[in-house]
Amino acid sequence: MYFEKIVAEGLSHNSYLIGSQGKAAVIDPRRDCDVYIRHADQADLLITHIFETHRNEDYCIGSRELAEKTGSVICHGANTPFRYGTPVKEGDEFMIGSLRLSIIETPGHTEESISIVLSDPAVADTPYMIFCGDTLFAGDVARTDFYGRERDAEMAAKIYDSIRTKILALGDGIILCPAHGGGSVCGTEIRDYPFTTTGYEKMTNPFLSMGRDRFIRERIRQTPYTPPYFRHMERCNLTGAPILHGVPLPPRLPVARVQELQSEGGQILDLRSPPSFAAAHIPQSLAVWRTGISAFTGWFFDYERPIVVIDDFNTDLDPVIRQLMRLGYDNVAGFLAGGFSSWYRSALETASFATCTVQDLHERLRTETPFILDVRDIRNFSTTGHLPGAYHAYVGELPQHISEIPRDRPIVVTCDAGFKSSLAASYLAANGYTQITNLLGGMRAWVLAGYPLLHSGDRTPAEEEIPALERSRILRG
Amino acid sequence: MYFEKIVAEGLSHNSYLIGSQGKAAVIDPRRDCDVYIRHADQADLLITHIFETHRNEDYCIGSRELAEKTGSVICHGANTPFRYGTPVKEGDEFMIGSLRLSIIETPGHTEESISIVLSDPAVADTPYMIFCGDTLFAGDVARTDFYGRERDAEMAAKIYDSIRTKILALGDGIILCPAHGGGSVCGTEIRDYPFTTTGYEKMTNPFLSMGRDRFIRERIRQTPYTPPYFRHMERCNLTGAPILHGVPLPPRLPVARVQELQSEGGQILDLRSPPSFAAAHIPQSLAVWRTGISAFTGWFFDYERPIVVIDDFNTDLDPVIRQLMRLGYDNVAGFLAGGFSSWYRSALETASFATCTVQDLHERLRTETPFILDVRDIRNFSTTGHLPGAYHAYVGELPQHISEIPRDRPIVVTCDAGFKSSLAASYLAANGYTQITNLLGGMRAWVLAGYPLLHSGDRTPAEEEIPALERSRILRG
Amino acid sequence: MYFEKIVAEGLSHNSYLIGSQGKAAVIDPRRDCDVYIRHADQADLLITHIFETHRNEDYCIGSRELAEKTGSVICHGANTPFRYGTPVKEGDEFMIGSLRLSIIETPGHTEESISIVLSDPAVADTPYMIFCGDTLFAGDVARTDFYGRERDAEMAAKIYDSIRTKILALGDGIILCPAHGGGSVCGTEIRDYPFTTTGYEKMTNPFLSMGRDRFIRERIRQTPYTPPYFRHMERCNLTGAPILHGVPLPPRLPVARVQELQSEGGQILDLRSPPSFAAAHIPQSLAVWRTGISAFTGWFFDYERPIVVIDDFNTDLDPVIRQLMRLGYDNVAGFLAGGFSSWYRSALETASFATCTVQDLHERLRTETPFILDVRDIRNFSTTGHLPGAYHAYVGELPQHISEIPRDRPIVVTCDAGFKSSLAASYLAANGYTQITNLLGGMRAWVLAGYPLLHSGDRTPAEEEIPALERSRILRG
Amino acid sequence: MYFEKIVAEGLSHNSYLIGSQGKAAVIDPRRDCDVYIRHADQADLLITHIFETHRNEDYCIGSRELAEKTGSVICHGANTPFRYGTPVKEGDEFMIGSLRLSIIETPGHTEESISIVLSDPAVADTPYMIFCGDTLFAGDVARTDFYGRERDAEMAAKIYDSIRTKILALGDGIILCPAHGGGSVCGTEIRDYPFTTTGYEKMTNPFLSMGRDRFIRERIRQTPYTPPYFRHMERCNLTGAPILHGVPLPPRLPVARVQELQSEGGQILDLRSPPSFAAAHIPQSLAVWRTGISAFTGWFFDYERPIVVIDDFNTDLDPVIRQLMRLGYDNVAGFLAGGFSSWYRSALETASFATCTVQDLHERLRTETPFILDVRDIRNFSTTGHLPGAYHAYVGELPQHISEIPRDRPIVVTCDAGFKSSLAASYLAANGYTQITNLLGGMRAWVLAGYPLLHSGDRTPAEEEIPALERSRILRG
Repeated sequence: MYFEKIVAEGLSHNSYLIGSQGKAAVIDPRRDCDVYIRHADQADLLITHIFETHRNEDYCIGSRELAEKTGSVICHGANTPFRYGTPVKEGDEFMIGSLRLSIIETPGHTEESISIVLSDPAVADTPYMIFCGDTLFAGDVARTDFYGRERDAEMAAKIYDSIRTKILALGDGIILCPAHGGGSVCGTEIRDYPFTTTGYEKMTNPFLSMGRDRFIRERIRQTPYTPPYFRHMERCNLTGAPILHGVPLPPRLPVARVQELQSEGGQILDLRSPPSFAAAHIPQSLAVWRTGISAFTGWFFDYERPIVVIDDFNTDLDPVIRQLMRLGYDNVAGFLAGGFSSWYRSALETASFATCTVQDLHERLRTETPFILDVRDIRNFSTTGHLPGAYHAYVGELPQHISEIPRDRPIVVTCDAGFKSSLAASYLAANGYTQITNLLGGMRAWVLAGYPLLHSGDRTPAEEEIPALERSRILRG
Repeated sequence: MYFEKIVAEGLSHNSYLIGSQGKAAVIDPRRDCDVYIRHADQADLLITHIFETHRNEDYCIGSRELAEKTGSVICHGANTPFRYGTPVKEGDEFMIGSLRLSIIETPGHTEESISIVLSDPAVADTPYMIFCGDTLFAGDVARTDFYGRERDAEMAAKIYDSIRTKILALGDGIILCPAHGGGSVCGTEIRDYPFTTTGYEKMTNPFLSMGRDRFIRERIRQTPYTPPYFRHMERCNLTGAPILHGVPLPPRLPVARVQELQSEGGQILDLRSPPSFAAAHIPQSLAVWRTGISAFTGWFFDYERPIVVIDDFNTDLDPVIRQLMRLGYDNVAGFLAGGFSSWYRSALETASFATCTVQDLHERLRTETPFILDVRDIRNFSTTGHLPGAYHAYVGELPQHISEIPRDRPIVVTCDAGFKSSLAASYLAANGYTQITNLLGGMRAWVLAGYPLLHSGDRTPAEEEIPALERSRILRG
Repeated sequence: MYFEKIVAEGLSHNSYLIGSQGKAAVIDPRRDCDVYIRHADQADLLITHIFETHRNEDYCIGSRELAEKTGSVICHGANTPFRYGTPVKEGDEFMIGSLRLSIIETPGHTEESISIVLSDPAVADTPYMIFCGDTLFAGDVARTDFYGRERDAEMAAKIYDSIRTKILALGDGIILCPAHGGGSVCGTEIRDYPFTTTGYEKMTNPFLSMGRDRFIRERIRQTPYTPPYFRHMERCNLTGAPILHGVPLPPRLPVARVQELQSEGGQILDLRSPPSFAAAHIPQSLAVWRTGISAFTGWFFDYERPIVVIDDFNTDLDPVIRQLMRLGYDNVAGFLAGGFSSWYRSALETASFATCTVQDLHERLRTETPFILDVRDIRNFSTTGHLPGAYHAYVGELPQHISEIPRDRPIVVTCDAGFKSSLAASYLAANGYTQITNLLGGMRAWVLAGYPLLHSGDRTPAEEEIPALERSRILRG
Repeated sequence: MYFEKIVAEGLSHNSYLIGSQGKAAVIDPRRDCDVYIRHADQADLLITHIFETHRNEDYCIGSRELAEKTGSVICHGANTPFRYGTPVKEGDEFMIGSLRLSIIETPGHTEESISIVLSDPAVADTPYMIFCGDTLFAGDVARTDFYGRERDAEMAAKIYDSIRTKILALGDGIILCPAHGGGSVCGTEIRDYPFTTTGYEKMTNPFLSMGRDRFIRERIRQTPYTPPYFRHMERCNLTGAPILHGVPLPPRLPVARVQELQSEGGQILDLRSPPSFAAAHIPQSLAVWRTGISAFTGWFFDYERPIVVIDDFNTDLDPVIRQLMRLGYDNVAGFLAGGFSSWYRSALETASFATCTVQDLHERLRTETPFILDVRDIRNFSTTGHLPGAYHAYVGELPQHISEIPRDRPIVVTCDAGFKSSLAASYLAANGYTQITNLLGGMRAWVLAGYPLLHSGDRTPAEEEIPALERSRILRG
């Protein structure tokens, strides 16, 4: 049995290549799909089948790209009207060499969600492995909020039943291969385990120890963030994303061309570190660091206007492009040739804002009361605690809250470690704010330095200032 | 949790890199250990610990090579006197970041065999994964014959107890990470699964459904092959193999240098395919194909005399060198520059023997009775069946049987598919046999062509001819 | 100044990437053009211009593929009506950063041939380097036979004048960067030098020491071989080859699919070595070894029917696919999964023919008179000498001569070293010949073994048997 | 003829691999010598000879490392007592396949400097190419100051004669392959050409149009910078640098380990960009950017104390390690795991200084008079011009001038573009200076912004402030 788990870093998306006797199948391929072909070649396998466990919101499915190159068949659940591929149903079976793949319908995350049970009939009928998509994760279960608030309870009930009656019923020793690992936006509690088993989840996954009613209550109480690009992905995946024939190689653009693009509405995505960005950057650019591309680009960048990417030294850009293509950003115009220093070496205008350390801030708070903007996930804000008086707005939702950020006060932006706050600060700067400081190290460093935090249980002005909508998001469980 | 399974193809040897919070451990590293460092670097991990589940016979342990590069500590079981590293005992615990590694002693395969139980205390005390070395495999259990026939039953009993009381007792949902996959010489029945679980093994592993006595009986009845190089590996691993500081880059040798080396006792390892080798080869060379290097070199090549490697076009030689270094062959002098054609383009003498297809042989057997030499594993010979009158000698043991192979009769050499028989034929040719034919496709093709075989249950002359020693090896289960 | 010479092995085709101050130009790009983009990226250059020194016959120009990815402008000589790009004329100048590229028209090889003179005005006006396409090579000058016999003298005169008045007139210290190196079919005498200079050529190139009349006489006396695929390339290059968006990744095909393709007219290209092919091959397949693909595929394979590629172990196939795509073979269906042994392991029919060493043949010629078929270049046949009685037909032209090869006699095929004769033998076998032997080592080994040859000056039956057309090809210079 | 020029970026060091008929030679190998072996393997060549054109000061010669792997012979000029290798003399000849390498002695840069003349006797006796080491460059000639001021004129005379009588005398059309390209510290005027020719140099190299006396006068007037590490290299190269067996793989170090190392005297080399470093850095670290490693590390770092390397995201570190090993820095302890943000996320102390744009500075100079420290090469300072009142100290010589830099005034550090000034600023900060500003874009941006400069011809206070030693360095030619 050939088995390869392929992780798309950033998305924490898992896809799987399995093969036997010259044939292979891919489950949930990513868009930069050369990896499957190279692995299959290495193992002398022909990819004949592609399975999509579900329509996806967080990335462009690579099935059509891969099918175009391999001639393989695309299979997905029957309960959503895809414009391509073949619907499969409960009980359908596929032989990949000596391996049997059986479809089970596991609705809940989406209506058409399926799981694929792998067994090896030559050995036993008992299932060996399940590719369970977004249905069940290590330590978490799928989101059920994509059909809107009104159907949340209905979908939560469905996923409860799918997990209980379809997956856990198969026994304790089955290897679970979910579509996401820790860090994915598709679950807030997913553990970063390489795999898990039905047995281990039964013993450790908090959602699996709840009764049906409590489970539904807990699920609908959760309101994970939904970046605006999800809509675009949904459309893409139903109709099929444009075929790219490989990973794009965006060119190196001279300074003059970048100026031109910017004047025509181009968007600047700056990969550099928080200190680098703060000290100098192209006006109007947004700070999205390398490993944050998958999670944060989709909150701020649109699909129409060209994107120019800025780095310090233009090193290791292939993963950058791959992350962007997975999100459907086919509008990358190129990289600033020579890196960011080309800009200031050309005497072009740069902008900057301040950074400070937690020691600096601690000192400063003795005498000043800057506006503290905390852009972490609301759960971290509430659970870990926050600075007294901190105003919370999740980085991705900052645009909706900008009217509440004062323009005439010094602002200190903070988050977990200083990266999301760099993005938030860049957004403020691009919107005309001038007295911005990014706190390097964020609340993580603040705590390590031994400085105190307020918690949401505490009755504080900060709590008061959390807008009603936000407050409802706080997980009390 | 960082997790990476690294497979040494050919050996079907699995090693594992696990990491958390900047620290990492490697379990059973191979000798070409750059792979661990590169992965660790990619994940910003520092390798601090190396665990050896047991002394190994089939390859050179890479612990010292890796420790030299990383400064990490080498840990192995206490019951064997290694000349390096630190002994660990039942109950010892190591934290790798947030992960807990607990040692359990699981003797049986060797006296000092340990397994390493991984759990994630932040989540639960329940074990998540076990690195069980050669103790328990997917579908098989460890060999217990390394201390000699007289201790076979004792070791089989130990392994039975180790598996029952130490491993299976932990529960059904635990991921098992053994040191070998399908194709390894360390087990005859290992399934080629990427992982397995305690639960799946309980349901499907035939050795786990046996009682203690039956288990011991079955184990000692098995007599897997033991290549002579195992002794060298054992010594190497107890004292520590020479440190190579990376993968060697043996040079391309001109024809004249190869002649010189051969005249000084050099050994020729020819990587080419069976047809290529049969049609022309350097006299005295042995045919060990690319994917057979790990399993067959150690039967025929010694560690003193230089080895010259021959290929058709000198493509993709890095895996060749890696396979040889893993077996401790530090005596590779180089590759014939320009590939095999350099030899005949230089008008040097070549040797050859015949090949035939199964159709050819079928036809020929109507009128002739060549000596049929079948060099497969005795189990395949017996279970799958063989040609009438076939003489069996396992390819690796051919040197011991050569006196029984007639020099004055036409010989047809066969095996499963034509590769092992190519090696056997090359050995015969190097020993002066002249009327040799290698059957391309072997018994696999013979059966596919619809031609009949005799089985060992059948009373046939072939059965008669199996030497007593060999016959005792046939698995009757 | 950024400078990179990129060699397409097999074609011995040189292309050049030059850059300065963020801009770059490519001269004569090959079709697998990712290499230019990667180099340019590494050096932070944007490719803005592509220059084609001439329409090409021996490969698919990669200009459109590269322009599609980079947005660069394609420039070629004005005297041929290309369907794409921009015509440039004598005296046109382009600045690539601080470098000046000046066009000079150098007709002769083709009507629109141009050379590109590079100078560095900041240093001096004197030319530094010339990209002279197929006009002047190290040790040779361009072919002038592409417009047919009737215009041969006219074109030879043009090239004489181009070289004298345009190139050599520039001075002695200029670096010459031609479009081909040694081994190219675009010149029979090209030396395999990395570069050359005007001064060195003046002193050593035999064609530059001739007067105009003698030069023309010598050129028209030469009749280099012209593979049939040249026509296809010419058409492709005038209209623009299909855009592939990267290097194709043909799949691994199971045996059954290869059978199916073959039954539908598929062509089999077998990469294996001469001994490997001779001992066993798929009936009807042709033996084109790895490094012979660029030079010989175009004589035998058509562009309509699918091509299946066979290797022993499927190693290092990327260069194989690149060579085929450069020749415009977009009809590669895939590789036989598992390599050639998959075929015989499936008990499918194989064919074979004999091989022999020069010692064998020498012995055999004492008593037998097989038909000797010598498929070398006619010049080697004539100059180096040949076996008594040898019949000459260049491997590429074998199809036209097949009626002259007897079907009822043993045939020994020979060439320089045994590769071209392997292809010729495969062609004979595919056409029903049965008594074929390929001489391993060919005439090279024959001579090294100390056996005698006849030369064309000698009055021999062999000479007699050379057909009139062939005889006219012999270079008497 | 196989030919490959291998450039060690940063050092702008050229080495050459040439081969013919299975044999190869390397000229001036770098220490990370795997590149030669890989190329030779690819071309089926065995490296048999290594030639060193001269003892080197700017990098560790890789000859012993390469010889150890290939068994090749090391040849160098006879007039320096190397502890390894074989001396060669004028007129010695070596055949590498069909190529002839003839030694000519070309003293001047060093006493034992040789050049290697390559010719192809099968074609002509006339030289084709010369490997001229540091004797003659594109646009420049070798330094002659390594034996001290007192022998400068003597060595300049020698090199004049070597070039005239040994190299230029060979003719105009010879390809020159020097050991350095543009950007090397071994010549201040070397053009960044890939190659050059004797003819082109005669026409364009200013030093070749001078008479002997003027040449000597001009050479001794030049006082190129000599980093202190040159002494270490010289010793290394005479005795042979330690053999590393490949490129080191320094580990990722956790924050705590870096603190520990620093407390034990460890040195911190920070790769990050000027804005990134300025905004926050580990106290006492020095800012040496990626492409500045080869040129600047040797001025500031010692060979005894361990070096820790800091990057923002730990991308593309292989070239960093290669640059350091080429300079003999075998004391790299590792990289800060997780990159620089690990430091501030751990709440550890960081330092910072200001940056400003040229616009900012222009504005500021209206009202303030900060101390302007210009750390460019003195030639740029003098020729291009500088800010009024600027104090000049070359970045590498800053330690010797530090007593002249005021501790109580605001300091603006500037250079060509902002990188060298970042290093200088980091040095000041590490030495307790507090009011530091690094000018991003440097004098290049200042000029592009249209702001005026003073030139050294001008009578200005700045000129006055140049110390006498420095002033003597200004090139008046």
